[in-house]
Amino acid sequence: MQNDGLKKVAVIMAGGGGTRFWPVSRMTTPKQLAKLTGNDVMINETVKHYAGVINREDTFIVTNRMQADLMDKVLFDEIDRSHILVEPVQRNTAPCIIYAAMTMKKLYGDALMAVLPADHHISDIREYERVLNLAFKTADEMNKIVTIGIWPTFPSTGYGYIRFSTNPIEAGSEVYHLRRFVEKPKLEVAKEYVNSGKYLWNSGMFIWKASVILDCFKQYLPEMYEKVNSIYDKLGTAEEQAAIEEIYPTLEKISIDYGIMEKASDVFCIPAEFGWNDVGSWDALENVFDRDDSGNVVIGNDGQGIIDCKNSVVFDNSGDKFIATIGLENIVVVQTKDAILVSSKDRVQDVKLMVEKLKTIGREDLL
Amino acid sequence: MQNDGLKKVAVIMAGGGGTRFWPVSRMTTPKQLAKLTGNDVMINETVKHYAGVINREDTFIVTNRMQADLMDKVLFDEIDRSHILVEPVQRNTAPCIIYAAMTMKKLYGDALMAVLPADHHISDIREYERVLNLAFKTADEMNKIVTIGIWPTFPSTGYGYIRFSTNPIEAGSEVYHLRRFVEKPKLEVAKEYVNSGKYLWNSGMFIWKASVILDCFKQYLPEMYEKVNSIYDKLGTAEEQAAIEEIYPTLEKISIDYGIMEKASDVFCIPAEFGWNDVGSWDALENVFDRDDSGNVVIGNDGQGIIDCKNSVVFDNSGDKFIATIGLENIVVVQTKDAILVSSKDRVQDVKLMVEKLKTIGREDLL
Repeated sequence: MQNDGLKKVAVIMAGGGGTRFWPVSRMTTPKQLAKLTGNDVMINETVKHYAGVINREDTFIVTNRMQADLMDKVLFDEIDRSHILVEPVQRNTAPCIIYAAMTMKKLYGDALMAVLPADHHISDIREYERVLNLAFKTADEMNKIVTIGIWPTFPSTGYGYIRFSTNPIEAGSEVYHLRRFVEKPKLEVAKEYVNSGKYLWNSGMFIWKASVILDCFKQYLPEMYEKVNSIYDKLGTAEEQAAIEEIYPTLEKISIDYGIMEKASDVFCIPAEFGWNDVGSWDALENVFDRDDSGNVVIGNDGQGIIDCKNSVVFDNSGDKFIATIGLENIVVVQTKDAILVSSKDRVQDVKLMVEKLKTIGREDLL
Repeated sequence: MQNDGLKKVAVIMAGGGGTRFWPVSRMTTPKQLAKLTGNDVMINETVKHYAGVINREDTFIVTNRMQADLMDKVLFDEIDRSHILVEPVQRNTAPCIIYAAMTMKKLYGDALMAVLPADHHISDIREYERVLNLAFKTADEMNKIVTIGIWPTFPSTGYGYIRFSTNPIEAGSEVYHLRRFVEKPKLEVAKEYVNSGKYLWNSGMFIWKASVILDCFKQYLPEMYEKVNSIYDKLGTAEEQAAIEEIYPTLEKISIDYGIMEKASDVFCIPAEFGWNDVGSWDALENVFDRDDSGNVVIGNDGQGIIDCKNSVVFDNSGDKFIATIGLENIVVVQTKDAILVSSKDRVQDVKLMVEKLKTIGREDLL
């Protein structure tokens, strides 16, 4: 790691609630605080991913009140409590990012920021480091917003896409101009996207200088900029939290994609491939973990209770009851300390229906 | 109930081990001691079935050492400990029956015995009482062995069959001559049986006078008869158990069907239909319990965790973990205090493979 030039920081957006991994993810332990894909909770796995590029202590987390304390407990010790920025209410990603960027300006004058999701899986760490370094270099030298797009491997209808200009910004470069963001498409459209070679999955990873993104806010979301700038002096002081609590509820609820990126001219995009998976639902574990000879993924359990199952997932988060499965195909079985989920694999998205149902039947203890 | 004539007793054969309902049935709590089909353990449900015909206190149980104490604990108080006959080793059904019959002779001189399996389900109790009364009357008046056959409702390959003579023993009677017993047939053969109208399922229920069956033993299994008769004086005394332990291991291992019934001339058979089910495996619960509109059977659980499941079974024997099921079809989910079974419905017979596996991996705690 170089020590010359601007400081490189990671800003991890970790405010999500998320019920897609119920019963493992809960209101109090959302996905980023659950152990799903590694030995550690997902947010620490996220910190490990960029270890070769960003110092661990230069990690910032933006989260909500409910998760802040638990986050502080589970996060690596090197990450100071003051690096956990607490949103009093959720206002989508634009407020979250200006809060972080303004904090970087206050602390460091300027910094190279990598804004990263808290709960994605990356299997090819070396390649991820290489792409992240390229993104930092590009953001640093060219004063641009840089996004990382993922080469799609199938016509997903669960991801947003990025349409990029297929000519690089200069001959031989891996960096391209971004044309536009596209919402989750229908299957037919997704197929066209993938076949065209002109669309990438939106990884939600953005790299820029704090000064560059703040200029964008000033230009495209001036009201939000003014409000946050008005408490600039209080950032990093004992008065920060009170000031944030006052202005935050008045900030516009808008995503960084729509609030800034779609309006900004000349956003850059790096197409990449580093074994990325957003681990969006139980069936995604198949793409993160090795399967056995029958296509099963078995986690937290020695798998000795499995007889003649195929393409199924057994996720044992408590281990107290022996899990015996016989003749299953495309079934997900999850055990936690207080719940058992058995779902057909093509219906795992509907754990959100289960969570809704739990609310209506008064089983908040399971949320 | 009449008090004139011979005493009517029930002899329940309850020595079976049985792993077909693992994880609910265990070595220490086999099927007859498990709560599967009713509010009480199956053996007490069996006692309830004949409440209108046989006094509860005139119940005798033949079981093994391992189950005797637990049986005594769970059985209705009216059934005296002395009515639990303990087989030191299992020698199939003929020794079991002569032991019981000889005991009836010793206690009552003679008695009308209904030999009944411990773990079958009967839904039409009124009709069952009617058939049982008819069987007792026939056995009493005609000094015959009477069996109860069940009109088959589908070509089962899991039941033994009875071929009966389709002419009643006298005009207008519901009683027929039995021609022969047939082992579990292959599907094609079972279909022929069912279509022919000449075959019944063997319910394993036999009704006779103790004196009549003892005469049969004297004639067809004379060695066995002599051995048991040699300890006749000790039956019902403090010396009984020691005497039984001495002779029992020397008795021939043979079923009552082959040892006696196939040889005896003029065995009677009553074709019946009283919602009988032998509850042979998890999928049988579908035929015992009401299904919901989607064909699901949900036991021990309010079913609030079920979303869009069809023709599935949820059996909750512990209730401590919430069971959530989504989009399942033809799946059996069972929870006990220490195990979770998830099986495809057409593979539930293979819980026996699971039980074997548990032995090989040293999980005797789950057996």
